[in-house]
Amino acid sequence: MTETTGYSGGGPVLIKNPHLDSMEEDILYHLDLGTRTHNLPAMFGDIKFVCVGGSPNRMKAFAQFMHKELGLEGSGEDLADICAGTDRYAMYRTGPVLSISHGMGIPSISIMLHELIKLLHHAKCRDVTIIRIGTSGGLGIEAGSVVITDTAVDASFQPRFEQVVLGDVVVRSTDLDRDLAEELLACSKEVPEFPTLIGHTMCTYDFYEGQGRLDGALCSFSSEKKLEYLKRAHEAGVRNIEMESTAFAAMCRLCGLRAAVVCVTLLDRLEGDQIRAPREVLREYQQRPQRLIAAFIRRRLGLRPLPATEGTTDRHGP
Amino acid sequence: MTETTGYSGGGPVLIKNPHLDSMEEDILYHLDLGTRTHNLPAMFGDIKFVCVGGSPNRMKAFAQFMHKELGLEGSGEDLADICAGTDRYAMYRTGPVLSISHGMGIPSISIMLHELIKLLHHAKCRDVTIIRIGTSGGLGIEAGSVVITDTAVDASFQPRFEQVVLGDVVVRSTDLDRDLAEELLACSKEVPEFPTLIGHTMCTYDFYEGQGRLDGALCSFSSEKKLEYLKRAHEAGVRNIEMESTAFAAMCRLCGLRAAVVCVTLLDRLEGDQIRAPREVLREYQQRPQRLIAAFIRRRLGLRPLPATEGTTDRHGP
Repeated sequence: MTETTGYSGGGPVLIKNPHLDSMEEDILYHLDLGTRTHNLPAMFGDIKFVCVGGSPNRMKAFAQFMHKELGLEGSGEDLADICAGTDRYAMYRTGPVLSISHGMGIPSISIMLHELIKLLHHAKCRDVTIIRIGTSGGLGIEAGSVVITDTAVDASFQPRFEQVVLGDVVVRSTDLDRDLAEELLACSKEVPEFPTLIGHTMCTYDFYEGQGRLDGALCSFSSEKKLEYLKRAHEAGVRNIEMESTAFAAMCRLCGLRAAVVCVTLLDRLEGDQIRAPREVLREYQQRPQRLIAAFIRRRLGLRPLPATEGTTDRHGP
Repeated sequence: MTETTGYSGGGPVLIKNPHLDSMEEDILYHLDLGTRTHNLPAMFGDIKFVCVGGSPNRMKAFAQFMHKELGLEGSGEDLADICAGTDRYAMYRTGPVLSISHGMGIPSISIMLHELIKLLHHAKCRDVTIIRIGTSGGLGIEAGSVVITDTAVDASFQPRFEQVVLGDVVVRSTDLDRDLAEELLACSKEVPEFPTLIGHTMCTYDFYEGQGRLDGALCSFSSEKKLEYLKRAHEAGVRNIEMESTAFAAMCRLCGLRAAVVCVTLLDRLEGDQIRAPREVLREYQQRPQRLIAAFIRRRLGLRPLPATEGTTDRHGP
């Protein structure tokens, strides 16, 4: 069974669940929110941009950064965690921007996305753009490069997400919005201090054996087999590797959300496995997708004219 | 390819990676620890019990609770997060007990376990028992029951964990230590206020469609199909459903760690999907596995004699 519903583009958030409207109350358990306990349209109805990333601290820092970038009053230092009643996820809002953590891996982002998409539906949000800003391992590109994903692929380099439903496998498309990816690449010219490129992103269920690392507690393969696998991935167009993009792409596509994945690379996996850069270098790397997305949101909101300067952007791909 | 290495039982922690010993430094990136920056044998060499669970706050509360249960000096309120330099995981120690969060889902626990197992190996720990104390959905048992897992099974009710290695699937056994499970069941007589039982635990990659919930953002099946699936699971011996046990069982088994999974059930999935119990009830439920494990560790350390009173324990299973 293959599901390949396309984008609605700019409309409401689509819930593909006929049971939901007959529920008297919907408890978004892992977000500590609910339709009876919270006025979701009042809290979230005007949200236009949702940014998600693994680390709660990073998503708080992003919300504070966006607060300044949007020119809003106050320092933004006191933004409250909307999900403070639970430590599963953290959520912050500033202006029309919602910033949420999703933890690591497909199951963790999938729980958050189910509840976030229901939240956006209950809040009657329209015209929502959702962007994952994350970290990743690069393939054949300089550490610190930012990769905008055109297509998320699995560990066999296929553009698909296999979802188990009642014990059976359902295959879903992982295409992302090409126009949005190109728009983001254009925005990257406003932040020319680091390379930005478009490429495929490989999504795995495991950081060590699943990504061909030689430094886990378990490893049964040679350095040669590892490099052979990573080079095949590179030849298939993969430019970075992370652990959430296929599920993110598949769910957002099915629910009519324009979606993008923008990840910085912390190392080049063709050079090694361990993340050895000093903490301050890694911290600056992690700000790069945030700066790109801030430029994009500012441009969308008409807060700054398009600069004429050329950036060091590049386009890679198969 | 099937890997079925058994337990070493009571010996050192086994690293199944020939590359590791030739590394000059091992950076445990997601724990913010390393062999060059930290004296791991001094910090962790005497650890005998490792307890892991999804929520960082809950694992902090467990460490504080154990501190009191072990009769150690001070209130335990000021236990420091050993992984404070990162927000990926939280780690606390008190006496011979290490308490670590693992987030939600197989990929998240798998990253933590790779780095934890390497940590225990570098620290030269011996005779380590590791227990996951978590939350779950029950199947045909009263909410608040505690399930000790005999075997972790996948969404097809099979005792296996499929690990992708360089794009190929490797099948691993998910048996847990039966003697340890029986020892824990015996300990449950010391905490007779709630039912404890032994059964199979089903592990899924998804909380909504993957566990047959009707209340996600996506749902393509009927209430009848859902119940048919859950009843088949129950007939196969499944008594609760969570999202980490197969990977946990497989990795601990391969690395010679005596392992157990002890989860409280927050609801009976044959009765519904939403977690509706009040927060204070859920909080008390979540303390139940902690109380059982505290009784077990106290008994192992000879801190309290075996009580003669009978508890309300029961044994379920196929």
